[in-house]
Amino acid sequence: MDRMIPPLETLAEQFGRLPGIGRKTAQRLAYHVVSLPAGEAKTFAQAIVSAQEAVRRCAVCCDLTDQELCAVCRSTGRDGATLCVVEDPRDVAAIERTHEYRGLYHVLHGVISPLNGVGPEALTVKELLARLRDSAAVREVIMATNPTVEGEATAMYLSRLLKPLGLTVSRLAYGVPVGADLEYADEVTLARALEGRRAL
Amino acid sequence: MDRMIPPLETLAEQFGRLPGIGRKTAQRLAYHVVSLPAGEAKTFAQAIVSAQEAVRRCAVCCDLTDQELCAVCRSTGRDGATLCVVEDPRDVAAIERTHEYRGLYHVLHGVISPLNGVGPEALTVKELLARLRDSAAVREVIMATNPTVEGEATAMYLSRLLKPLGLTVSRLAYGVPVGADLEYADEVTLARALEGRRAL
Repeated sequence: MDRMIPPLETLAEQFGRLPGIGRKTAQRLAYHVVSLPAGEAKTFAQAIVSAQEAVRRCAVCCDLTDQELCAVCRSTGRDGATLCVVEDPRDVAAIERTHEYRGLYHVLHGVISPLNGVGPEALTVKELLARLRDSAAVREVIMATNPTVEGEATAMYLSRLLKPLGLTVSRLAYGVPVGADLEYADEVTLARALEGRRAL
Repeated sequence: MDRMIPPLETLAEQFGRLPGIGRKTAQRLAYHVVSLPAGEAKTFAQAIVSAQEAVRRCAVCCDLTDQELCAVCRSTGRDGATLCVVEDPRDVAAIERTHEYRGLYHVLHGVISPLNGVGPEALTVKELLARLRDSAAVREVIMATNPTVEGEATAMYLSRLLKPLGLTVSRLAYGVPVGADLEYADEVTLARALEGRRAL
């Protein structure tokens, strides 16, 4: 018995292309969407097209925005001497939520990953260099890529590129997460936390 | 600092309405979709609209189909004396994958759930009764609703409705899942497995 319902299969396949959505979940979502009233399905489809059309990269920092410049780059109240380099637009959102950082950002849109065929040319490294050459305001670049092997390698690669420009290049501190239990911290994190200990 | 990007928020909100998609996942999906090439985003949006428009309920069994009748109801090789009542179109797919069942189906599109305000009139109970009254072919109705409190209650409710029609009403067997470890079976399942034991 062939149970294929082609439009449903096509939709499940589309959902299955989204990151973190497996085959079972994709089918569940497809079944849900075909049960929606026509108006709701159209609203959903329209939100996809509208967002994809309206959202672009900020002309300065490459963060996502629906305008020429993102809100941080448009703001006059930010500290132009500090630039925080992150992998992803969601990392900007995470740092903004701390309300502790007043500088600017640069979004790489990925990390260097030779295994996945991602080299520096696939990231916004060229834009970062051009930006630092054009502006004398930036004094410090904070590498805030993820504390993963690839994030680490990308931070090292960029720091080697940027140091000749006479900039201070720093890296986020490693240590035990606030509120966590030492017992469950992995050895590498704990070793880094000891290494980076500070006087009280 | 206001970081809202309205079209992105709208899209994340739409993803967040899907079952099992939380706020974080919805944001991740929205960020992914706005990074897609325009063509891919349009294809995705179109798949939603096309599927919602094309997929409807089978005029006989209420399973999903893109035609007037679903593949099972169109088929001439099925046993019209047996009707399997399930909650959801995905349950039909699950039973079909066993290749053990040759009868017909009826899809309720839900279960009776007073807490969620779902009564029999929200399900396809009326269609089931009309179908059984119109056709003298059906001899046995198998209740294959989920082994949950609500699935159970729905099976009991329907069996009380159907028995006066002179039909055999049966229920899926309970027991230990094949390949599972007895040690990890819950007491209710194990008690049911003992109760339903069969001579070897």
